[in-house]
Amino acid sequence: MKYYAKPIAKLIGKLTKLPGIGPKSAQRLAFYIMNDSDEEVEELVDAIKDVKDRIDYCEVCNNLTEHERCNICSNDERNRSVICIVESPKDIIAMEKTGEYNGLYHVLHGSISPMEGVGPDDIEIKGLLSRIEDEDEEVEEVILATDPNVEGEATAMYIARLLKPLGITASRIAHGLPVGGDLEYADEVTLSKALEGRKQV
Amino acid sequence: MKYYAKPIAKLIGKLTKLPGIGPKSAQRLAFYIMNDSDEEVEELVDAIKDVKDRIDYCEVCNNLTEHERCNICSNDERNRSVICIVESPKDIIAMEKTGEYNGLYHVLHGSISPMEGVGPDDIEIKGLLSRIEDEDEEVEEVILATDPNVEGEATAMYIARLLKPLGITASRIAHGLPVGGDLEYADEVTLSKALEGRKQV
Repeated sequence: MKYYAKPIAKLIGKLTKLPGIGPKSAQRLAFYIMNDSDEEVEELVDAIKDVKDRIDYCEVCNNLTEHERCNICSNDERNRSVICIVESPKDIIAMEKTGEYNGLYHVLHGSISPMEGVGPDDIEIKGLLSRIEDEDEEVEEVILATDPNVEGEATAMYIARLLKPLGITASRIAHGLPVGGDLEYADEVTLSKALEGRKQV
Repeated sequence: MKYYAKPIAKLIGKLTKLPGIGPKSAQRLAFYIMNDSDEEVEELVDAIKDVKDRIDYCEVCNNLTEHERCNICSNDERNRSVICIVESPKDIIAMEKTGEYNGLYHVLHGSISPMEGVGPDDIEIKGLLSRIEDEDEEVEEVILATDPNVEGEATAMYIARLLKPLGITASRIAHGLPVGGDLEYADEVTLSKALEGRKQV
């Protein structure tokens, strides 16, 4: 770092802390920012500040939003009888991109992980239950779309057990081979799940 | 972008404009920044602003600096009789990392490229000549370290021709195979340059 003027070294240091940015990319970005127009850089800085200052969690589903309720919860055209449970707001983006789902969401902001000391009370399960118990909401089905790993599986099972006495249909998204994948390279667990979940054609 | 809250969409848009940052990385960075501590984000923002506000060009060599003269020009331990000519401040960093050079630099901020309408007057050659003609500076040798491509080569030749009547030794950095490279994969031009520049062992 001794080769750089101090402000450049500092910016490179800060950029290197971001995920997926190594020293080379950080140098490239720092030089780009330095040579970019004042206007562009100001807009970048404002965008960074805005995302910190103006984004909050939706009071209903914990999705990210700049209002009290997120775009999805406040959209009257969505099917309010289905809630899809995901671990993070990024998962909502992935689900929305399919264009196949028109219900609501609930973001847990994590998954149950005894190894990391995260219990059921550390993620947003309570709010989910009160949504389901609220008779005005008329929730009929819950789709468990937590990640397909040990923690996500455990979280899905835990929530399914909580929902059973409430008479709510709970389903888990399917496991199987990814589309465009290669059977030869699939791991055994995925392949046996794919076999198990086979459908008549 | 319609899936994101507005401030997030805006930040992702701004980040995607940076070099080497695609939509996926931009999303990852935006979510990281959103979840990062207020303090860290403020430091990042300040670092970006500082690099714009406090960095200027060295009045002697056009390197980047936060003072009037850069670290290298104002360092009394450098050999002031040699000037290494490079195209950009990044090249100085690369040269300095070798630890093999102890002279001064001169940054052209570009190279002569008739194809792109960049002539000799559009890059910082004038300042170089006045440095060399200045008798207080006592410049004896100039190393032409412009990029090893058509434009860099043309620029080096142009400057060499200007320096000849001034009685200055001008040298061009060597072309050849990169260390750790593979002869099999070297292009013909590089290989013939490597042959041409062979040294007795």
